[in-house]
Amino acid sequence: MTEAHDAVEVIATKRDGGALSDSQVDWVVDAYTRGVVADEQMSALAMAILLNGMGRDEISRWTAAMIASGERMDFSGLSRPTADKHSTGGVGDKITLPLAPLVAACGVAVPQLSGRGLGHTGGTLDKLESIPGWRAALGNDEMMRQLEDVGAVICAAGSGLAPADKKLYALRDVTGTVEAIPLIASSIMSKKIAEGTGALVLDVKVGSGAFMKDLANARELAETMVALGTDAGVRTVALLTDMDTPLGLTAGNALEVRESVEVLAGGGPADVVELTLALAREMLTAAGHGDVDPADRLADGSAMDAWRRMIAAQDGDPDAALPTARETHVVTAPATGTLTRLDAMAVGLAAWRLGAGRATQGETVQAAAGVEMHAKPGDAVRAGEPLLTLHTDTPERFGRALAALEGGVDVADTAYEATPVVIDRVG
Amino acid sequence: MTEAHDAVEVIATKRDGGALSDSQVDWVVDAYTRGVVADEQMSALAMAILLNGMGRDEISRWTAAMIASGERMDFSGLSRPTADKHSTGGVGDKITLPLAPLVAACGVAVPQLSGRGLGHTGGTLDKLESIPGWRAALGNDEMMRQLEDVGAVICAAGSGLAPADKKLYALRDVTGTVEAIPLIASSIMSKKIAEGTGALVLDVKVGSGAFMKDLANARELAETMVALGTDAGVRTVALLTDMDTPLGLTAGNALEVRESVEVLAGGGPADVVELTLALAREMLTAAGHGDVDPADRLADGSAMDAWRRMIAAQDGDPDAALPTARETHVVTAPATGTLTRLDAMAVGLAAWRLGAGRATQGETVQAAAGVEMHAKPGDAVRAGEPLLTLHTDTPERFGRALAALEGGVDVADTAYEATPVVIDRVG
Repeated sequence: MTEAHDAVEVIATKRDGGALSDSQVDWVVDAYTRGVVADEQMSALAMAILLNGMGRDEISRWTAAMIASGERMDFSGLSRPTADKHSTGGVGDKITLPLAPLVAACGVAVPQLSGRGLGHTGGTLDKLESIPGWRAALGNDEMMRQLEDVGAVICAAGSGLAPADKKLYALRDVTGTVEAIPLIASSIMSKKIAEGTGALVLDVKVGSGAFMKDLANARELAETMVALGTDAGVRTVALLTDMDTPLGLTAGNALEVRESVEVLAGGGPADVVELTLALAREMLTAAGHGDVDPADRLADGSAMDAWRRMIAAQDGDPDAALPTARETHVVTAPATGTLTRLDAMAVGLAAWRLGAGRATQGETVQAAAGVEMHAKPGDAVRAGEPLLTLHTDTPERFGRALAALEGGVDVADTAYEATPVVIDRVG
Repeated sequence: MTEAHDAVEVIATKRDGGALSDSQVDWVVDAYTRGVVADEQMSALAMAILLNGMGRDEISRWTAAMIASGERMDFSGLSRPTADKHSTGGVGDKITLPLAPLVAACGVAVPQLSGRGLGHTGGTLDKLESIPGWRAALGNDEMMRQLEDVGAVICAAGSGLAPADKKLYALRDVTGTVEAIPLIASSIMSKKIAEGTGALVLDVKVGSGAFMKDLANARELAETMVALGTDAGVRTVALLTDMDTPLGLTAGNALEVRESVEVLAGGGPADVVELTLALAREMLTAAGHGDVDPADRLADGSAMDAWRRMIAAQDGDPDAALPTARETHVVTAPATGTLTRLDAMAVGLAAWRLGAGRATQGETVQAAAGVEMHAKPGDAVRAGEPLLTLHTDTPERFGRALAALEGGVDVADTAYEATPVVIDRVG
């Protein structure tokens, strides 16, 4: 039974620096979902939360209220434990693709319910949709069967999970209130907790290509989310990982699928392999399977096998050729020396402009568009030799993509000190 | 020519503590008026303004943009100078009623365009509507003719003045963003400047029955408004006046008209007379007629004459009996001694609950409802003798009105030190 409140009273509490009571939080989230609290009232409250903050108890209650706004999934009937991963998003972040089948191959089920990307590159679903035949929409029964049979499913999240978050996220996007850590944390965690996973590993990106540009904010977000998960009975840990440089050597949809398959085949870029294994170990430990070494399952081909079965179960053809772009354009190294910087934001923006991402909800993405990198920071490059290859079906996009890359590449004679992929662990 | 901006960019500037550029202000006010910036975006901006403030230049530009959103009146064709008064509102504040004809009788024209009250007692228009026949709606030509002939007009403000403010005020009312001093100041001043008055005197109330409860905030509001008026070429001064105690001995609609007529007849409560004369002197001085003493025009009956002509010009009958309430209830003094406190908020709330004010736009008010006071702080009272008389047409309201008065009256043996009516002057 929710006590009745008034929107202005709830807004005024937060505006004046107070903490919202449990009853105020329950009421305002429910009333907003039902349309009793109007968009203009919720956006004023969101701005007050952004500027005045929220305590741990408030965020926890807010998250619970968002979960209560919709349905909640239950995987307790499965024969194996579940673990999920969430990344706050970065350039070239294809880790979900090799990770889900790898963890499944280690005996832990991975129910990965994803949204569509809005931004520099497509989301995980956009990447997988570059595989001929593959479909993102699964019914609940189908998903359960695939989790039991294959152990991994990556599919579109149903609209029944945390509808309050869906509505609030769209509102924050147009009202300058995306940047509130309490609201970011509760948005992510309400969906992940409602999904019913037993364990959760968070990949919180920090750097130029990430939403969180500095380590202090990223750490605060990670700590907040780990506390929320733990409060809700989900074993939760977070890794803080670098996003000053793109992950791997590709940013795009089909380009990233190709690289993910290379990792599953035992190759692929070192940073992608390192992060995939680090996240797999955290998921396995959190799910009680810490004794299994995922590197073995990469080496013995069982992760690749799980991948092929996962793709095929959703009508994708794992052997089909991936789409390639109609046009490419090569960017050469500006000097001879060591590549000391390859800015993630610049590469991400270029990939976006080439057609790999969408600017507005509902836009289609180009499966083959993106940026291929031929060197990463620390590598020696020679003036005039290929540094990047840009891919697109619409060559009129090259100009703006090249503009995005300006100032994003440094070549120097100085020694290069590598940043670790995993910066820290919270939880 | 307004440069194009984006709502989220403007919101983010203020959210992050920056100052809005002239171009951002012009764009956002215009785009909001046209519906291009949505309510949920403007409310987020309003909350950011409330919490992060605005500099003088920003407020000045914001006010100018609100004025530019609509039409602007021009009284330069009149044969005499103009002066207007605005009060931030208080309990028993009927000063406009005797003040407008008094100043007119001194040779300065008073174009008083008013809104409807929302709150404890009705607005000035509600008070005048208790006079049989009187009408608030005047055409522009009628208003001009009355200003020339009578010298004073109190009428409803047309919807063409500062439409941006009308829209923004309604939004602030439901989003907990009324309390932002920059927005209060620009709301009041955009309407007053658009009205085209040559001089303006502001009565900024401070105390329990006022919107501003403490002197520091009231002073900040007064200083902000005086600067805005001066920047716009309007000779502007402000008086900070007490609102811990109601003004005069009545709070209600017809009750306040009756008291105003007493003042015009040379009687009436001392505080009402004092404030009316103080404001009249400021208006006359600001309009270049500082040599005229308004006390003379009260004494010689010319102010009363202007009142009668002003009422008659709008079809009111100045000789008609005012409505009286069907029921009254007497509240007696709780003890014998000196009345040391008669709380303005308590009296205002009681008058509201008796039917003198409205809770929602469009509600009707009772002309005869209200509170009559038989003593003011400093007066000797005797236990059991009448202290207040409550008036209403609907006696079921007495219970809640009495509850509002609880704790609002103190009687003591201690000496009472009177607060001055006029606390300070700004400008």
